[in-house]
Amino acid sequence: MQTIHPVILCGGSGTRLWPRSRKHRPKPFLPLLGERTLFQQSLDRAADPRRFAPPVIVAGSAHCELIESQAESRPGARLIVEPQAKNTAPAIALAAHALPADAIMLVCPSDHHIADETAFLSGVEQAASLASGDYMVAFGITPTGPETGYGYIRMGAPLATGHAVAQFVEKPDLATAEAFLADGGYVWNGGIFAFRAGAFLSELATHRPAMADAVAQSFARAEDRGWELHPDAEAFAAIAGESVDYAVMENTDRAAVVAADMGWSDIGNWDALMAARDRDDAGNHTRGSVELAQCRNVMVESDGPRVSVIGLENVIVVIDGGEVLVTARNAAQHVGKLTGAAQQ
Amino acid sequence: MQTIHPVILCGGSGTRLWPRSRKHRPKPFLPLLGERTLFQQSLDRAADPRRFAPPVIVAGSAHCELIESQAESRPGARLIVEPQAKNTAPAIALAAHALPADAIMLVCPSDHHIADETAFLSGVEQAASLASGDYMVAFGITPTGPETGYGYIRMGAPLATGHAVAQFVEKPDLATAEAFLADGGYVWNGGIFAFRAGAFLSELATHRPAMADAVAQSFARAEDRGWELHPDAEAFAAIAGESVDYAVMENTDRAAVVAADMGWSDIGNWDALMAARDRDDAGNHTRGSVELAQCRNVMVESDGPRVSVIGLENVIVVIDGGEVLVTARNAAQHVGKLTGAAQQ
Repeated sequence: MQTIHPVILCGGSGTRLWPRSRKHRPKPFLPLLGERTLFQQSLDRAADPRRFAPPVIVAGSAHCELIESQAESRPGARLIVEPQAKNTAPAIALAAHALPADAIMLVCPSDHHIADETAFLSGVEQAASLASGDYMVAFGITPTGPETGYGYIRMGAPLATGHAVAQFVEKPDLATAEAFLADGGYVWNGGIFAFRAGAFLSELATHRPAMADAVAQSFARAEDRGWELHPDAEAFAAIAGESVDYAVMENTDRAAVVAADMGWSDIGNWDALMAARDRDDAGNHTRGSVELAQCRNVMVESDGPRVSVIGLENVIVVIDGGEVLVTARNAAQHVGKLTGAAQQ
Repeated sequence: MQTIHPVILCGGSGTRLWPRSRKHRPKPFLPLLGERTLFQQSLDRAADPRRFAPPVIVAGSAHCELIESQAESRPGARLIVEPQAKNTAPAIALAAHALPADAIMLVCPSDHHIADETAFLSGVEQAASLASGDYMVAFGITPTGPETGYGYIRMGAPLATGHAVAQFVEKPDLATAEAFLADGGYVWNGGIFAFRAGAFLSELATHRPAMADAVAQSFARAEDRGWELHPDAEAFAAIAGESVDYAVMENTDRAAVVAADMGWSDIGNWDALMAARDRDDAGNHTRGSVELAQCRNVMVESDGPRVSVIGLENVIVVIDGGEVLVTARNAAQHVGKLTGAAQQ
């Protein structure tokens, strides 16, 4: 078995988790589920030295301090500091340059939750096996409902492990999502990928030659500060930002998918976080000084002030850093558009 | 026309308006509607010197400072400091002792709202006229809906002005309240009364001789401190507290009622306060730093922190003094039972 190199992407801002998530302490660096932050849990999941090499972390300069304090002592770990946010394709390409061409990269967002680590690790084995055959491998999440907030992957012909990708599908409407769920041949695109580093760079050069060149130049002129690697800002600035889905996955003829049923959540908003939490018999969850009366399916989290809630159903209340958010569960996706979330 | 003596009762604690209403600044002393407090508005309504004598205010010692600061300069006004809260009958009896036997008393709670002062003053004239004929006169509020939170008065035979009282009815259930509304012969008991002072004391002596004696003794031994009058605590302590409705109105054979349609509200809870407020086209009302998105019939009041509310209907949010209250409008009557409201 070949060692797997975790590549942890720390790009997500998480404005839909405002006021908990803020510019200076965004979503990956919050302990949203459990005692450790999502970023720490991402590291922990791929930390077994019998299976994983030290991680390569890719993040913006604003979060270097958070990362250094939360990554703790990890000999051999590296932090690649993106000069600018350019979406996932350039970030992954930087990491690919920092690894040997034959390294198997496991690209993981730092702001997702995975409840079932055994299922995750089993998926990793399957993905790594496909990646070592130069497949561009996406993790497909077994759908648990007709979600309209995720991209879908239609699974095609079976491969040695997993399947070929028949099609990437944009976020569907509800009727389409329900049809996908009934069909059974569709999985969510979870943003987790496995590549052989050299194969990834070669596919990028084929489908996005300008981006591939710019990343290569930026990396070649990088300033090495030991734990931190600073790619050249000027070369990087010329890149047109693009996701790995658009730049590579939808263009390659070697896209594969490994379906995993691993209790995954992108914790994309307060409602998703509520769904991942333990709740009492009335479906309520509280944290901090909270009194509920006649409530069902209510979540209240307060970092200080007492919150008293009466007679509500399917409502989320969050008090954090002097801000008060009260939202219907089914309107939680709107949080990122609030003045407060935009101003922070 | 005989001068009318306003008697302002400051007994209400208003726990159902927590966290705005607190022990140290209860409901009467808050500017809930407009710039002046409910207590000040009660004084203002009966302040025209062509019609009204200076007020007699009855309150507990805890609120003397609030009353002195809010009553402003009113020559001739007096404050009777109740040694203990004993409900309305003893409070009114103390005021009656402080007035000449022929004085017409207009007894007003200090925590109600009256939108139409012209209608109020017209009702006062009718009530005063009946009171000068030794009727015990209750103000009846023309019902605006099938309220189950108020006592009702069934109007009987017409008098010179107003009607005799046919019956006092306890808080009804919804079906009964709807029947009362359809009948048209029922009004709410608004807690506003008019009496000739001597006639009131005489009725009290008939129906509650022990209470009448105890009040008379307490008043006779009162300590006069100028603006403040302190009735004797020991005599007062022996009184069994009782409302004027039970002690006098339901027993006298001279009960009369004057119906008034004057935009009255007892502002009994946050929902009633919301109903009395101006609202925008979506039925929303906000005070303080508030952002609403996709909300209908929502009221949010904050004394500081920004509040962001999304996707809710018929919900009230109040931030006051570090406490956060979120309640369904139709559960607002439960507020007084919250731990926070009880602890304060």
